[in-house]
Amino acid sequence: MKPLDIQELMLQIGTRARAASAAMARADTATKNAALLTIAAAIRREAAALKTANGEDLAAARTSGLEPALLDRLTLSDKAIETMAEGLEQIAKLPDPIGEISELRYRPSGIQVGRMRVPLGVIGIIYEARPNVTIDAAGLCIKSGNATILRGGSEAIHCNRALAKLIQEGLAAAGLPTDGVQVVDTTDRAAVGALITMPEYVDVIVPRGGKGLIERLIRESKVPMIKHLDGICHVYIDESANIEKAIRIADNAKTNRYGTCNTMETLLIHRSVAAEVLPRLARIYKEKQVELRGDDAARTLVPMSAAVEEDWRTEYLAPILSVRIVDDLDAAIAHINTYGSKHTDAIVTEDYSRSLRFLREVDSASVMVNASTRFADGFEFGLGAEIGISNDKLHARGPVGLEGLTSQKYVVFGHGEVRS
Amino acid sequence: MKPLDIQELMLQIGTRARAASAAMARADTATKNAALLTIAAAIRREAAALKTANGEDLAAARTSGLEPALLDRLTLSDKAIETMAEGLEQIAKLPDPIGEISELRYRPSGIQVGRMRVPLGVIGIIYEARPNVTIDAAGLCIKSGNATILRGGSEAIHCNRALAKLIQEGLAAAGLPTDGVQVVDTTDRAAVGALITMPEYVDVIVPRGGKGLIERLIRESKVPMIKHLDGICHVYIDESANIEKAIRIADNAKTNRYGTCNTMETLLIHRSVAAEVLPRLARIYKEKQVELRGDDAARTLVPMSAAVEEDWRTEYLAPILSVRIVDDLDAAIAHINTYGSKHTDAIVTEDYSRSLRFLREVDSASVMVNASTRFADGFEFGLGAEIGISNDKLHARGPVGLEGLTSQKYVVFGHGEVRS
Repeated sequence: MKPLDIQELMLQIGTRARAASAAMARADTATKNAALLTIAAAIRREAAALKTANGEDLAAARTSGLEPALLDRLTLSDKAIETMAEGLEQIAKLPDPIGEISELRYRPSGIQVGRMRVPLGVIGIIYEARPNVTIDAAGLCIKSGNATILRGGSEAIHCNRALAKLIQEGLAAAGLPTDGVQVVDTTDRAAVGALITMPEYVDVIVPRGGKGLIERLIRESKVPMIKHLDGICHVYIDESANIEKAIRIADNAKTNRYGTCNTMETLLIHRSVAAEVLPRLARIYKEKQVELRGDDAARTLVPMSAAVEEDWRTEYLAPILSVRIVDDLDAAIAHINTYGSKHTDAIVTEDYSRSLRFLREVDSASVMVNASTRFADGFEFGLGAEIGISNDKLHARGPVGLEGLTSQKYVVFGHGEVRS
Repeated sequence: MKPLDIQELMLQIGTRARAASAAMARADTATKNAALLTIAAAIRREAAALKTANGEDLAAARTSGLEPALLDRLTLSDKAIETMAEGLEQIAKLPDPIGEISELRYRPSGIQVGRMRVPLGVIGIIYEARPNVTIDAAGLCIKSGNATILRGGSEAIHCNRALAKLIQEGLAAAGLPTDGVQVVDTTDRAAVGALITMPEYVDVIVPRGGKGLIERLIRESKVPMIKHLDGICHVYIDESANIEKAIRIADNAKTNRYGTCNTMETLLIHRSVAAEVLPRLARIYKEKQVELRGDDAARTLVPMSAAVEEDWRTEYLAPILSVRIVDDLDAAIAHINTYGSKHTDAIVTEDYSRSLRFLREVDSASVMVNASTRFADGFEFGLGAEIGISNDKLHARGPVGLEGLTSQKYVVFGHGEVRS
């Protein structure tokens, strides 16, 4: 399609989404759950067709030389199909956030004022090769009463088309508008540019993907985003840390998984315990083939390559860890607030006052005492689901579940009151 | 100053604000209240000096031919000075939102997860001639633990300079960094352009002023804003309205004050009660010299000029009211969601189901049943203060008090837990 046609296509999609959003917002819990369960059943029923569609995507991806890691993400296994269906069933079980009124209180004037949770309206989801995001995101947006525009990676277009049909089937069966979830059916990248520049039709964009995608969206988007760019997470081992906890947490935060955004990238250790803790940790990391890069003080304790300034700013997403010895809590907090990405940071300490200072003064979305950074996750935090993680301070911060796809408006119950 | 110098000046101010924000965020309640009360005392002590400074502004404004309404806003009367001091004392009495931890719950993994309320960081306030905004905004930002950059209208520069000195005095006396509140000391408009395009230094902009200012900021800002552009508020009188309540509310919502953003601009009346209610209301409006502009159905009941399409989209801020007769609740909701500004809308009804539908389906920041739209206000809603009103859905919505100047981060209390 020509750029102009794409623009026109996206405006049509936006117009339809905005029109559908009223019915999505009005839908009661039973209706939304019926849609979710119908889609789940359709996914199981059409597993073979989904795998055929996915096969087309994989064949095209192999021809165009997609790298193995991306091919892996693109692949829709039997297990992945079952996981998508189960995910929808779990979303159906979550409490419906919409319509909930909180803090309803009488005011001296006689009116009662409270806050009602309502959908945001239209959510745009931009993601890469993983076809399961299509179902996850659609499910969360349906449950939260939003209309959705899904723009998945072009590598997954056949699979996403097939999934879109099943989503439409579920919406229709529940009596919801089929425009409540639209999958953008073009591989043209101009569609993304259009989607992020039509704030009249899209209330928020949730990007899921690599740093390149997010950086582009931050530069170009005219629509607010729920997003994070980096996960440069720290563990700080305080002088009064319980050493066994420190070893366990610093091990887990780095080596539980290397490619996740809540993985530790820099380890900070108080000078007075460094000689005790770093050599023990270094043995563990060596065994797991984690490369260490340290400052001078760390390198006098354990042989490792020298960390350069750039290391403190790097999200390795790999078995590499930078290590710095600090003089005190202030230095640790200053390092984190300077080099971190406001994602997730943890202190290991048995000191009461320092634990509270760390929680308050580290300016990150998730701050932890004596726990692994790997817990920063919607499911681990009890949100029941996760549409993404936000490092921004406005609106949703940290792991974002259904609530992040809603807003609260004021409701007033009056009895004929007027203002004097 | 040359534009380049302004840019440099604003970067310096931004850098200082960011540096001060850590100490402001750390400050305990007693320290912040001490600063507020010291500023209040200094305002009373320096009342004469403030009036002298204000006199300079007024003289310059008269010379440059500022219009009477703006001259009025610029004037700092004895009463206005006392009100500023009292305002700070009231802010000191408000509960400190910072550090509050809510929803702290155990998770199956053993960690406890909660949410801690923290400052946003650096708030930029952009406003026009009213010097009292300098004190109101500074007070709210101090209490909420934020650093602040205040950019008032050039007409009030002498008065704002004098107020800035008193604010600095209060911060210093309490042991807070004087860069915690900075007043931009230049009348160059380029300062605004710089302030709204440095997201590294400013976390949120709160604009207070006329539509021209807000429109410019929406076009140019790279920093998120807490703002509203229009207040096109509606009252819908349903067929099952209590007529006495309807008359009282429709009168008050229009005539209590004409220039406020929560004033009704369009009255919607159900066809079946229009003949009963509109002539009575028209008599009241006529007595108060409110001009009516109606659709054909309204004009058959009461003589008035014809409303054109543009009327439904206009915030008059004046004794003018557009009137439309509608067939049912759906038509009323559709009108409001089409022409309104998502600010404040009210239904007058005794019908249970329709009242709930109106609350849920009208997509505005404040929705009301049987109460005047004039109640949409931070004080009336019980926030204790108001920095502004937001018509946006993300972050703060509706009247914004201290809480809107904060965010919530996740805090995790662990006991050595790691993720499996």
